[in-house]
Amino acid sequence: MRLAQPLPPGSVIGILGGGQLGRMLALAAARLGLKCHIYAPKGDNPAFDVAFAHTEAPYDDPPALEAFADAIDVVTYEFENVPAETAAFLGERLPLAPGAEVLAITQDRLTEKSFLSELGIGVAPFAAVDDEFSLEWALGKVSGPAILKTRRLGYDGKGQLRIEAGDDPAAVWVNFGGAPSIVERVVAFEKEISVIAARGWDGAFAAYDVPENEHEDHILRRSTVPAKITPEDARAAHAIARTITTKLDYVGIIGVEMFVTQEGVLVNEIAPRVHNSGHWTIDACLVSQFEQHIRAIAGWPLGDPFRYSDVVMTNLLGDEAAGWSTLASRPLTALHLYGKAESRPGRKMGHVNRLTPRQP
Amino acid sequence: MRLAQPLPPGSVIGILGGGQLGRMLALAAARLGLKCHIYAPKGDNPAFDVAFAHTEAPYDDPPALEAFADAIDVVTYEFENVPAETAAFLGERLPLAPGAEVLAITQDRLTEKSFLSELGIGVAPFAAVDDEFSLEWALGKVSGPAILKTRRLGYDGKGQLRIEAGDDPAAVWVNFGGAPSIVERVVAFEKEISVIAARGWDGAFAAYDVPENEHEDHILRRSTVPAKITPEDARAAHAIARTITTKLDYVGIIGVEMFVTQEGVLVNEIAPRVHNSGHWTIDACLVSQFEQHIRAIAGWPLGDPFRYSDVVMTNLLGDEAAGWSTLASRPLTALHLYGKAESRPGRKMGHVNRLTPRQP
Repeated sequence: MRLAQPLPPGSVIGILGGGQLGRMLALAAARLGLKCHIYAPKGDNPAFDVAFAHTEAPYDDPPALEAFADAIDVVTYEFENVPAETAAFLGERLPLAPGAEVLAITQDRLTEKSFLSELGIGVAPFAAVDDEFSLEWALGKVSGPAILKTRRLGYDGKGQLRIEAGDDPAAVWVNFGGAPSIVERVVAFEKEISVIAARGWDGAFAAYDVPENEHEDHILRRSTVPAKITPEDARAAHAIARTITTKLDYVGIIGVEMFVTQEGVLVNEIAPRVHNSGHWTIDACLVSQFEQHIRAIAGWPLGDPFRYSDVVMTNLLGDEAAGWSTLASRPLTALHLYGKAESRPGRKMGHVNRLTPRQP
Repeated sequence: MRLAQPLPPGSVIGILGGGQLGRMLALAAARLGLKCHIYAPKGDNPAFDVAFAHTEAPYDDPPALEAFADAIDVVTYEFENVPAETAAFLGERLPLAPGAEVLAITQDRLTEKSFLSELGIGVAPFAAVDDEFSLEWALGKVSGPAILKTRRLGYDGKGQLRIEAGDDPAAVWVNFGGAPSIVERVVAFEKEISVIAARGWDGAFAAYDVPENEHEDHILRRSTVPAKITPEDARAAHAIARTITTKLDYVGIIGVEMFVTQEGVLVNEIAPRVHNSGHWTIDACLVSQFEQHIRAIAGWPLGDPFRYSDVVMTNLLGDEAAGWSTLASRPLTALHLYGKAESRPGRKMGHVNRLTPRQP
């Protein structure tokens, strides 16, 4: 369903997922006088601690989903692997943003790459893989160093395998586990960037300045804004996000991960949600990506994405957050901790935004 | 009790009072991975909507207070009229910040003015009033246009009466209701300003830039930062806040309302809590007054009060918040709504921060 009219203060935003993104969405909604109801399966759900209401239930629990739908005015999600049936169930009952079609496209790497390709947006050469024979064919098609990825449910490098020249396709396929996959050529990129942009129900569009991203072990380590890229590449990156969101009739914040290469800007993947590489907007912009997402899905005017400071966002992974006392005393540094009960290696426990403001 | 050591993330902050100040404190605590438990009597308590836990009970309910004390690691308050017995009860069981002595002083205008006077801090001429005879004497002592104020429980102009030349003290006293009061000379001020400052358990002190405040019908309408005052007056204002907090061994944010007069800076009153004239810090500083208060009472390092933008904060009173859609579309304007269920004339429903940032 589409939203009939802007949701007034006091309305209830439903959010699927109880992690740090849902938590930061709930904090942003509260600024605007909107309430949040978080729906998440049993587990460590730090978003519950700051929300007006929460439901702890599996995603495939129709009575719980029905009650959730009755209690909220619009529904969104903090992660793209919400089961399609859950999204469809809710989307039939109330406005869902971003929509079910968006989820369907971004949950499947093959569909996503095909969608982008058909829009004329640059992507790494890719081919579908369903067995050892199509893997061999695909490796020939993409020609060059390649990476094998499951079509579904991958994140932070999970479900990915680098294939070296001379590897035996049959052995690789058995080793990989045999799920429907794609092969992509490994891109010789100069920089990784992303576009964090918002689109409203009315088609309004607003994009933040482009961050430059560094990953370690497939996990985002650092985003630096502004990215050291040419104005042409920045414009191209924004234009790509605009093309994607327009085509999808997208509503909410989108994160589009891209490579800057010698041949121009290529899209790596689309995240239909607030994005880790946009966390710097909390402190360097008047309207953060979280507030912008809430504004978009609630039918409010989009906020000004104006950035008033240069900034470096660094994730706090695992035990790094144990240094909170030292981190809290750094000048010009905003500390964000997610309230997670348990620290694990590589787990995102918080982030810091280090600003370089202009002096008054 | 004093805080034995800094409270790690995951600790629970207890807050007495469930209004917008408690709500914004809870939102700020969440950024740092700290939880909040709000304690407030039955009523419209928008802070409940964003807190980890809440207790709805009267302030004079020892079993409820006992359970509250057991569930939290430190306790603070969002308003200065917390009953002294409540504060004492909690302060015996766990760290209370600001402390009970601070409450005792600021809850009584006579004690407050005497305290300031004894510190050598300028205040308007004042005198205690307990009956029509002392009123007559007091009016003679302060000489000039005067204002009669109840010693306790006044805010936003309630419990105040302007006395004109020629008014009959006996009639005024009967009309006023006869509560213990003080008379103050009406100050011929050039500007109203305030200092929002923080002090930690370790004595660390940090003050924000001085806002200039405008009141309408005794309610704050607008704070403009920086105030158009001389550097000498700004320094004097900061020095006064430092003197007060040092003398009180104060912990947390203090709001000190002052007048700039031809004879220098005079203190009007002390608010032992986050203060309406500091709401601009949410958007114009990296660490807001709310986060600073949480840092202070939790034993964390104080944040840098650096302000990176000029800003005007305007309160949204009563039905003004109904214009949320228009307000949300203003450029460089951050909108804050408090989630209150009911709007009444003059009730603080939200505020907007209009920034004038330096261009990158």
